[in-house]
Amino acid sequence: MAPQYAPSLRSRLPLVTFLLETIFLLLFVFFVKIEQHEPREFDQKTFIRLYAEFQDIHVMIFMGFGFLATFLVRYGFSGSGFNLLVAAMATQWAVLMNGFLLPQRHHNGAIYINMKSVIEAELCAASALVAMGAVHGKTNPVQLLLMALVEVTGFVVNQWIVRILLHADSLYSIMLLHVFGSLFGVMTSWVLHREQIRREKPEKEKTDSRTGLFAMLGTLFLWIFWPSFNSAVVYKKWETGLKLKVIYGTYLSLAVSVVIAMSISMLSSSKGKMNMVHIQRSALSGGVAFGVAMTAVQAPWIAMTIGFCSALLSALGCRYMKSHMLFAFECHDTCGVLNVHAIPGILGWFALLFLRLAGTESTIALRFAVHHICVLLITLCMSLVMGIATGLFLKLRIWRPQQDRKCFDDQAFWEFPHLVVKL
Amino acid sequence: MAPQYAPSLRSRLPLVTFLLETIFLLLFVFFVKIEQHEPREFDQKTFIRLYAEFQDIHVMIFMGFGFLATFLVRYGFSGSGFNLLVAAMATQWAVLMNGFLLPQRHHNGAIYINMKSVIEAELCAASALVAMGAVHGKTNPVQLLLMALVEVTGFVVNQWIVRILLHADSLYSIMLLHVFGSLFGVMTSWVLHREQIRREKPEKEKTDSRTGLFAMLGTLFLWIFWPSFNSAVVYKKWETGLKLKVIYGTYLSLAVSVVIAMSISMLSSSKGKMNMVHIQRSALSGGVAFGVAMTAVQAPWIAMTIGFCSALLSALGCRYMKSHMLFAFECHDTCGVLNVHAIPGILGWFALLFLRLAGTESTIALRFAVHHICVLLITLCMSLVMGIATGLFLKLRIWRPQQDRKCFDDQAFWEFPHLVVKL
Amino acid sequence: MAPQYAPSLRSRLPLVTFLLETIFLLLFVFFVKIEQHEPREFDQKTFIRLYAEFQDIHVMIFMGFGFLATFLVRYGFSGSGFNLLVAAMATQWAVLMNGFLLPQRHHNGAIYINMKSVIEAELCAASALVAMGAVHGKTNPVQLLLMALVEVTGFVVNQWIVRILLHADSLYSIMLLHVFGSLFGVMTSWVLHREQIRREKPEKEKTDSRTGLFAMLGTLFLWIFWPSFNSAVVYKKWETGLKLKVIYGTYLSLAVSVVIAMSISMLSSSKGKMNMVHIQRSALSGGVAFGVAMTAVQAPWIAMTIGFCSALLSALGCRYMKSHMLFAFECHDTCGVLNVHAIPGILGWFALLFLRLAGTESTIALRFAVHHICVLLITLCMSLVMGIATGLFLKLRIWRPQQDRKCFDDQAFWEFPHLVVKL
Repeated sequence: MAPQYAPSLRSRLPLVTFLLETIFLLLFVFFVKIEQHEPREFDQKTFIRLYAEFQDIHVMIFMGFGFLATFLVRYGFSGSGFNLLVAAMATQWAVLMNGFLLPQRHHNGAIYINMKSVIEAELCAASALVAMGAVHGKTNPVQLLLMALVEVTGFVVNQWIVRILLHADSLYSIMLLHVFGSLFGVMTSWVLHREQIRREKPEKEKTDSRTGLFAMLGTLFLWIFWPSFNSAVVYKKWETGLKLKVIYGTYLSLAVSVVIAMSISMLSSSKGKMNMVHIQRSALSGGVAFGVAMTAVQAPWIAMTIGFCSALLSALGCRYMKSHMLFAFECHDTCGVLNVHAIPGILGWFALLFLRLAGTESTIALRFAVHHICVLLITLCMSLVMGIATGLFLKLRIWRPQQDRKCFDDQAFWEFPHLVVKL
Repeated sequence: MAPQYAPSLRSRLPLVTFLLETIFLLLFVFFVKIEQHEPREFDQKTFIRLYAEFQDIHVMIFMGFGFLATFLVRYGFSGSGFNLLVAAMATQWAVLMNGFLLPQRHHNGAIYINMKSVIEAELCAASALVAMGAVHGKTNPVQLLLMALVEVTGFVVNQWIVRILLHADSLYSIMLLHVFGSLFGVMTSWVLHREQIRREKPEKEKTDSRTGLFAMLGTLFLWIFWPSFNSAVVYKKWETGLKLKVIYGTYLSLAVSVVIAMSISMLSSSKGKMNMVHIQRSALSGGVAFGVAMTAVQAPWIAMTIGFCSALLSALGCRYMKSHMLFAFECHDTCGVLNVHAIPGILGWFALLFLRLAGTESTIALRFAVHHICVLLITLCMSLVMGIATGLFLKLRIWRPQQDRKCFDDQAFWEFPHLVVKL
Repeated sequence: MAPQYAPSLRSRLPLVTFLLETIFLLLFVFFVKIEQHEPREFDQKTFIRLYAEFQDIHVMIFMGFGFLATFLVRYGFSGSGFNLLVAAMATQWAVLMNGFLLPQRHHNGAIYINMKSVIEAELCAASALVAMGAVHGKTNPVQLLLMALVEVTGFVVNQWIVRILLHADSLYSIMLLHVFGSLFGVMTSWVLHREQIRREKPEKEKTDSRTGLFAMLGTLFLWIFWPSFNSAVVYKKWETGLKLKVIYGTYLSLAVSVVIAMSISMLSSSKGKMNMVHIQRSALSGGVAFGVAMTAVQAPWIAMTIGFCSALLSALGCRYMKSHMLFAFECHDTCGVLNVHAIPGILGWFALLFLRLAGTESTIALRFAVHHICVLLITLCMSLVMGIATGLFLKLRIWRPQQDRKCFDDQAFWEFPHLVVKL
């Protein structure tokens, strides 16, 4: 089957990537320059710290997300390889989209490459990788690539609406990447695979002790560097106090959420055992929830409580909701992004609302609440609608050269030149 | 056997973690605040560097120690998973203990979360992880958790005695974590497993080429970032010269110790082959020994000599002492912490003594020697006594719900939902 | 066979390492000091950033190169273990060689250990590791060690000629490490293994899905931290603009090259599948090519174009040239260093020539072109001649105690104490 399927993809993927890469290259020729002096907003010192934080995020995007997706026995090469391809393309596209739409530093109309623009582009790419988590293993690389580019476009447009039209805080609007990405991905997965996935899944979606450790590696990279992920967007000179709060808060939130995730995983198992896959998901939920609420958290115990609650919801979701989604809605979410990114993200949104309301008087509070609800509703609508549209678009025959039933299967896409261990 | 054993643990671990986490949360509510401006002692610049060093240590604690413990075929999930759980709990507890006992910056009685307190808390957690290395695979997660919290308490109390009562240097007292942790762990292992371990070991304590590479990964993370581990505690503005010496000295000491470890491993093998497990242990000994002696080392060749000697002792210890300990004393030390942490640590202690005596006149020298010997003796007594006490405490029936003979076995604690490769 | 072979090596490797390590130690006693204040040329701030960049390079050398070499099923332990041994020795030797030959900061005749000297030493070690890539699996550790030390000596002498005699830019001369190392390695491999390798290869040079992921890990570490690899040598205070250009340029070049490498790998496969090994090689070519040309690149699109072309050449080379080299010239290049380092390096040389010529008037241009060609010719000659000489030297009976036909075989060098999975 595999050799029969692949030759057609051979004519698609190189064509699409060459075409896109050439377009990107041309857009870079005309619009993009390298900043040789960091903008006044952050001085030399800030650049130095940002470079360390950028490297942390860089590791998270390419190593963390990549190895997190290797948890399926038959999808190790594809999980890490397609992640690399998609993230590299999505980052380039996000630099351009952010530059065109969002208020960057347009001296003489050019888009400048600097620490800030590269970090923000990688966060947009992270949003696409979250969405990809829902369709992993059921989708060919051409579809993944197109999906990622559409997702980045949608996310940047959403940020434009929320930031420019609704005047939302930029720190908060970019952290909605978790909610946007995961709902987009789940919708795409639902439209794309409703008919075929249920009967095929069980025998193919396997993990073992080896892939569990590779996925643990990815999880740990994400978990360890998450404080930088949340704090890197706080880059202005006068925000050092906030930056410190974000770093320590994310750290404490994650420390609590990993403990709770393991406890819930053991408590909810009928045999009293922990589940490696659930822990790898839920341990990260504290970082997601805290990231959304971070501008309002003042005390360490609030950060810890957010980590506690998000891990509780996320671990229960991993145990019960994933299979429920599959049987009730015929929606298959490979990496469980709904439980890791959407639910903790919305929890963080509630935490932010509550913390802000607690500290302000009633008239301003009402205005804030309405504004806050609008932002979430717009993000939800955008992500759901665009996710469904993307799913319909990717269903087109042109992106699926032949029957692509070979799910969760590296052998459909990768050469194993001297294969020893038959998987 | 496994399902019979696990249901009882199901009722223990979540209960213990929820209880402890709630207590921690309450203590954080009343006592802990996030520092928004770094203390005067180190300025903005120092914070920037400390954040990079903190991330290095963070990687060592959660990734390094975690993957180092995956070297057993049947203990990969447990090695990395329990490490994550225990380290996350121990760090929270260490922040509190350090805050209560050691002279932190108590403005208005609060404990402040800042770079310094988080780094010191992670070093205390490292001490608990070292102790855990001796009992890995023979102990259930509830026992591991309790042991780690007792160890952290003991180590902080020991630091309090040594630093406050004996006025020892704080850089030196915290680096005794290797000696304290390893002796504590070995004693606990001895008390806890004397009767049962000998006849069970050989067929279960297995490594293979896959787990060897995962453990190599952990070792390399520890090895690469060790200069930050030693230098992060040197944080005062006026100590930059010392910081540089520590970084370069640790680097050189480790470079020599890895070379010597490999040579000794080959030389002492009857077949002339190297042993991956021994190398993973002994390559790190240079960092341990240099860490203890670091304040007195002035020249690069002294650092290299310390690395040379510690690797020599450590590699010979790995080859001959581990099995001797097992047969002569019925003491089983899973990760060989005695050879990696205790012996190089004591070697570092001797190096410090010798280097200090060489440079001072006789009256002061005598006083220094007496003081120095007192510090070691107190640390040895504390670690041995507390280790034995902890072993007796963990032997209580309540922590071992049913017969926990399932040593070195992931399947006792972890779900393998779609297990393909039978291990 | 293995036990018969090994005892002789047992008498060689420890002897050689003890001897060399003692010599290094003595040279360090007399010539090397630790710098306690960074030289005037870079201030405190620069040190802080350099430490982060140094750690990135440190990870690349010991983790990146080490795990990249684990892609062979039967060479995982050796790939990562010998890399550690050789890199640790080569770095020490490079500190000494650089100090003796190149214009370091000789106050009172001493060689000073500082960020600059350690970073440059690790780059020289990288050059030796590139060379080692060509002979991996066919050579015993004694030979690897001697080869690395000769290579470092040759590379430093070459730098001395190019920098001191021809007054070439130091940034450019050190980046020729890729061209020098790979040609040196290929020549050594050709001389050393011409007769024996062809008939033995196919059944031993195997990869599988596990080793592919370990090698992916190494590749990703190299790929992620490559911006630091190129920018760390730009350390002077007044070169911040150049440093930023190098960081962003390397980043963009690598992003494009990974996309092109995957496309070419799929396009050139008869079954339309990607090859993990080829991608792991070619994804890095953009960093190599950009590194050589970096001083002349001003715009982001030029960096992207360099990444595009180098990945194109490198991916085609991996697909077609490696086997051609084997059958036409009887030259076996284990890691394909010719396609990853030599060809992109020479491409970068052409890019530099072209970019410089485009911007200068004809008289200076001609002088520059002649100078530029001389530098490359000298480097090519040096690397080829020294590679052949080293190959002949390593063929001596003394370094090959008995018949060392056991190629690509961990079992020849490593103990597997409780081997479970037979490889």
